[in-house]
Amino acid sequence: LPEPARASSKRGKRGRAGDQKSLLRKDRSASVPADTTTIHYEKFWLYRHCSSLEQSHRQAQKAGQLFSGLLAMNVVFLGSAFISSMIFNRVAITLADVWILLSVLKVLCVFWIIYYLMGTSRKPHAVLYRDTHAGHIWVRGKFLMLFGSCSILLNVFEIGYSTILVRCKSNVEILFPVVAILFIGTQIYFLWHHSKDCIQVQHNFTRCGLMVAVATNLLEWLLSVTNDTLHMEMESQLREVEERFTGNETALCICPNTTICRVFQKGYILLYPFNTEYSLICSSMLYVIWKNVGRSISHHHSLERRPRFKLKGVLFGPVLGTCVVIIGACVFMMYQIQATSLDPSRQILVIYFTYYIVLLPLMSVCAVVGTIIHALEKKELDTVQNPTRSLDVVLLMSAALGQICMSYFSIVALVASNRRDLLNRLALAYSVLIILQNISQNVFVIDGLHRRHVVAAAEAKHEANQTPPRRMSVLELGQEIRKFSLSYIQTYSRLTWKRRVLREISFFLVLCNIILWIMPTFGSHPLFENGIERSFYGYSTWFVIVNFGLPLAVFYRMHSINGLLEVYVTA
Amino acid sequence: LPEPARASSKRGKRGRAGDQKSLLRKDRSASVPADTTTIHYEKFWLYRHCSSLEQSHRQAQKAGQLFSGLLAMNVVFLGSAFISSMIFNRVAITLADVWILLSVLKVLCVFWIIYYLMGTSRKPHAVLYRDTHAGHIWVRGKFLMLFGSCSILLNVFEIGYSTILVRCKSNVEILFPVVAILFIGTQIYFLWHHSKDCIQVQHNFTRCGLMVAVATNLLEWLLSVTNDTLHMEMESQLREVEERFTGNETALCICPNTTICRVFQKGYILLYPFNTEYSLICSSMLYVIWKNVGRSISHHHSLERRPRFKLKGVLFGPVLGTCVVIIGACVFMMYQIQATSLDPSRQILVIYFTYYIVLLPLMSVCAVVGTIIHALEKKELDTVQNPTRSLDVVLLMSAALGQICMSYFSIVALVASNRRDLLNRLALAYSVLIILQNISQNVFVIDGLHRRHVVAAAEAKHEANQTPPRRMSVLELGQEIRKFSLSYIQTYSRLTWKRRVLREISFFLVLCNIILWIMPTFGSHPLFENGIERSFYGYSTWFVIVNFGLPLAVFYRMHSINGLLEVYVTA
Repeated sequence: LPEPARASSKRGKRGRAGDQKSLLRKDRSASVPADTTTIHYEKFWLYRHCSSLEQSHRQAQKAGQLFSGLLAMNVVFLGSAFISSMIFNRVAITLADVWILLSVLKVLCVFWIIYYLMGTSRKPHAVLYRDTHAGHIWVRGKFLMLFGSCSILLNVFEIGYSTILVRCKSNVEILFPVVAILFIGTQIYFLWHHSKDCIQVQHNFTRCGLMVAVATNLLEWLLSVTNDTLHMEMESQLREVEERFTGNETALCICPNTTICRVFQKGYILLYPFNTEYSLICSSMLYVIWKNVGRSISHHHSLERRPRFKLKGVLFGPVLGTCVVIIGACVFMMYQIQATSLDPSRQILVIYFTYYIVLLPLMSVCAVVGTIIHALEKKELDTVQNPTRSLDVVLLMSAALGQICMSYFSIVALVASNRRDLLNRLALAYSVLIILQNISQNVFVIDGLHRRHVVAAAEAKHEANQTPPRRMSVLELGQEIRKFSLSYIQTYSRLTWKRRVLREISFFLVLCNIILWIMPTFGSHPLFENGIERSFYGYSTWFVIVNFGLPLAVFYRMHSINGLLEVYVTA
Repeated sequence: LPEPARASSKRGKRGRAGDQKSLLRKDRSASVPADTTTIHYEKFWLYRHCSSLEQSHRQAQKAGQLFSGLLAMNVVFLGSAFISSMIFNRVAITLADVWILLSVLKVLCVFWIIYYLMGTSRKPHAVLYRDTHAGHIWVRGKFLMLFGSCSILLNVFEIGYSTILVRCKSNVEILFPVVAILFIGTQIYFLWHHSKDCIQVQHNFTRCGLMVAVATNLLEWLLSVTNDTLHMEMESQLREVEERFTGNETALCICPNTTICRVFQKGYILLYPFNTEYSLICSSMLYVIWKNVGRSISHHHSLERRPRFKLKGVLFGPVLGTCVVIIGACVFMMYQIQATSLDPSRQILVIYFTYYIVLLPLMSVCAVVGTIIHALEKKELDTVQNPTRSLDVVLLMSAALGQICMSYFSIVALVASNRRDLLNRLALAYSVLIILQNISQNVFVIDGLHRRHVVAAAEAKHEANQTPPRRMSVLELGQEIRKFSLSYIQTYSRLTWKRRVLREISFFLVLCNIILWIMPTFGSHPLFENGIERSFYGYSTWFVIVNFGLPLAVFYRMHSINGLLEVYVTA
């Protein structure tokens, strides 16, 4: 139902246009951007009789958010209905129909982004403030670029695969990935350069554009998750997807025995999880921009220096964490080898659960210790408005719900089924520990995010004293290495023990969460494969529960990494 | 996982106990309750190093809310897992197990409420402020008392029914309704007298108590909804519930042909929907109290006079609304008579949809006109913090999601199935109009809730001039009636046209929402019974969608009535 939203944004624009002109007349000469006359107060036809400009601005902001939110809600519901129809009634609505809907949305988004880059953002005083908390360098660098590139690569593979099998595929199937690549590329460019913007002009149109983009990414995620169906039997799934497209001509569409076709297929399977996560990250970044539309940030606040990521001053965390990652990787590989065999043994499940049962209490204890140290530290609490942090907290809590929900279902099933063998007990311990770990980690991260960062003056000074790098002989290199280790140890001992422990803990937890992200993402689902819960609730019910919980659990791990890195840097 | 929450509340208590004593020493003599020294600042062991008492108070509040919220989340998840297990695996977890869990929770809640009434609320300075917005008289009167009494009656019927069939039922089955009655009664007493409290002592313990109560009510609602399963085939359902309890002895447990047994059975079926709604209302009221724990309200704000509900000054709204209700009741009865027959004709579905298709645009137009009048009115916007209103807005929006979600699924099914007969078109128009109506009504109500209420001085004066009621002769009665009608017309003409139209509209919408609440609540589900969507998505999928959407849609109507009455009173 975009009508009211669109209508209101039109009226809003008209109102603003006049407003803007009069402002421009005054401000052409003004050079300081933080001048009060450059503030574009929002207007909305519903709120014309407010006592102050300020209040009408605030109300207009709320109304704009309401209408653009309603727009997104309608798009998401329509898309969800499409996707569900595709799943449950493959005749009436095909995957192609869903892709057409998504492509239309993507094209709309691309047009809006281009308009934003060319038009909106170039208007005078369009972006007076930038939110320093939005779009951290590692969110943009690691998540956005890495996952975005993987998503583009995925679509390239899809094009290649479709080209090889062009005889049994329609040409439209090559068009969709092209649109997707265009969309992902434009979106990465937009988010890379504009994720910190607090947009001050064309408020309602910008909000609607952002919300359509959020909705598109959410639908993309929903489609990935439902298409993915647990990453299980991916290859047969792939064949099934083809079937859905082509109808009856299944027999014709088998990958010929060329290497390139196999590469495309394998690459597709390997890159798929990145695409899923990428959509969610984009949604959350776009949401933060949307929250920042029309927001004005005090000058002092916007100039606050953000700490940079440095590896100095940690020792045990990385070492212990690396051990955990290596052991985890071994367990994961053993699990994968076993799982691909037709009859997975119980032994590998025992090993898998044991690994978790050893690791999870360690992580929980670390998180609790971290929380206690936070309490001991004499740091001020930061209570300044910060949409990025609020979103981080909400996402952490709601993503944890998926895992916790699954665990409770598992606990009830295991206790009620009343079988007293080793595997059953291990699975029970695993579920209980997962809940404890998620909650303790959330408390630690949320608490850490609200601590005010103190720029360590000593550290900055020390850094300035270091010589710039230059070409050196082998002898000099030896000296440099000695000097570096010395300075490392110095930094290490200079940090107070509290900050050091906090850094060790958060670094350790980052590494743990990385391995706990990798394992379910690339195919280990013991909760599904051990069969206890599956036989208790019935296949389809447990499938729905896991299919709801698992994508959230995977996202939770990734989002925790983000939060923990933030805690590490500010510690 | 109540451990951390409980532990923290204990420590919190100890901290506060000392704090309190020192405060008491100072304050025994103080008589003015709004004295600043009587403020019980919250403390929390995590936040001891804040610069100001104020900041540590705010942080402690957040931490208390986080921990009690986590407690509720865990209880809800555990309960949901229990209920799901009961549905999907009737052997391992029976309805009796779920009832035992719920009864334990209910007993805990009763103990906490008694402790609150006897202990917490009687402490000095326990309740310094009262939230005037919480627990409106019609929420408490109409919803709480009416629905609560119905719930008690329902349990009485259940006891009676079980007593008659005592030979095939366990004695425990009589115990559960007794606990339920005890719980409902205590809760009504608590909410009636304490729904406006802003509790200032024992913050964390009170929060945990409230959250357990919220969780219990939510689980009660979940059980009702899942047990209800669309209110369809209620009677056979009832028999099935018995089966679940007794295992194999089904044949023995049939209601003997006595009137009393039939009355119990029928009463149970009729009263069931009230119980469902009652749980949700209690949850939302308890949530508001929870939000108000530790909140301090400025003296001016708390003394603000709330307008009373008066029927004066409306004419067309009630008349038109009553017509709508009467016609709706006729359609509903025709529908019910037809639906109970084994082969419901398409004709009744056509009549049903036509009724909606005529009514919904009328309601939408009214809501849009109301929104425009709100914009024309020169009223200030109320931006004071108000948990009741925030919750109202969130509930309105999220309850509307259920209906809108169902409608979108229906639209996709109807468009994709591509049948061009009358019923299909009507159902499509119905779904589209439902979305438009929900959104326009939400905008109208949310906008109205944020208008500041102006106490009409003229009205109050006029009222004071009226004579108090006394015994009168027939002649006097005639005069009184004349006088009353005169004063009614005077009041009517005295209101500005804008306020008058707003009142007419909101009254009309109240009546419309009442009939739209009655119809699905007591058994009309054309979306399920017309069979188009059912055959499109498959029985079980559509059943899940409707079973998720319908309880929310029903709650939406009831909650809209609440919001519209508020708009009516403040207009």
